[in-house]
Amino acid sequence: MTSPLRVLGVDPGLTRCGVGVVDVARDRSAALVHVGVVRSATDLPIERRLATIAAGLREVIAEHRPHVVAVERVFAQHNRSTVMGTAQASGIALLVAAENGLDAATHTPSEVKAAITGYGSAEKLQVQTMVARVLRLDALPQPADAADALALAICHAWRRGSAAAAGSSTALTPAQRAWADAERLSRR
Amino acid sequence: MTSPLRVLGVDPGLTRCGVGVVDVARDRSAALVHVGVVRSATDLPIERRLATIAAGLREVIAEHRPHVVAVERVFAQHNRSTVMGTAQASGIALLVAAENGLDAATHTPSEVKAAITGYGSAEKLQVQTMVARVLRLDALPQPADAADALALAICHAWRRGSAAAAGSSTALTPAQRAWADAERLSRR
Repeated sequence: MTSPLRVLGVDPGLTRCGVGVVDVARDRSAALVHVGVVRSATDLPIERRLATIAAGLREVIAEHRPHVVAVERVFAQHNRSTVMGTAQASGIALLVAAENGLDAATHTPSEVKAAITGYGSAEKLQVQTMVARVLRLDALPQPADAADALALAICHAWRRGSAAAAGSSTALTPAQRAWADAERLSRR
Repeated sequence: MTSPLRVLGVDPGLTRCGVGVVDVARDRSAALVHVGVVRSATDLPIERRLATIAAGLREVIAEHRPHVVAVERVFAQHNRSTVMGTAQASGIALLVAAENGLDAATHTPSEVKAAITGYGSAEKLQVQTMVARVLRLDALPQPADAADALALAICHAWRRGSAAAAGSSTALTPAQRAWADAERLSRR
């Protein structure tokens, strides 16, 4: 029927930026495409660190050609000392998406946990366990920050899939609209 | 003697991003090169807004060829509702600097105020008045956020100039090192 939606999830960070690419089918089944971490050396000046993150994300997009990019939403109140770097890294991820002609979306950690495990205050391990199960992996996805990126990617596809099923097509990406349209046609 | 240091100051923002370019000579005299605001429409998705900011900054760099980029440092505790967008815009400014092979630096609002007016808790109007005086403008620089960008650019040149004079060359950009070297030679 319709081809799966390929989502790049980004767990933004300056020192370690988790990236996960998954293919999610209309029936919510998901397959792992790529998982990894883009790193930047802590002794580089901030502008070089951000350029390193941008280059790493561009490489992942060029290699795996996602349809959409999902980035974890960063809040001001979290972990004061690193939050600005995390926000800057998230800005870079969103920019790189736009510059590749891709739509982007942000999801909060609670939204990701709720989408993956069914409740918004799930433990990290529960999320990782569910991600491994969904992707039919033999072990927990490693490293942990990359697991978060995978959860984010799955969350995005599942949440948008539900939105499409609910018929609220206004906030959909082109790929999601294509899905929603295909679904409508299949119902005739 | 040595040619002036051309600094691009960026007052980061998602809706309005102030940009100011100044030439600062070794004797601290400064001349206005460019002042303006890069805007992004509030109804665009965040990734498009960041791409608009990036494109605007790249245009200013391409046209005015600064030697270095100074960006206002953003703090988590400031103005909760917009701080994440401001942080993301600052990340974009730093990235664009790096991608143009330029060094970048960040300065806090207090550092800018102290460098321009002599005290770190100066009023906005005092800073603008000093900027106008330093640049020999007939009126206060407009708009106000662009004035902040000019103050930032002057601050950067003056602070680095002092650092160079003090002989602390380790944290200097190539242009600043060139200045410091020229100064050392002139003392022989």
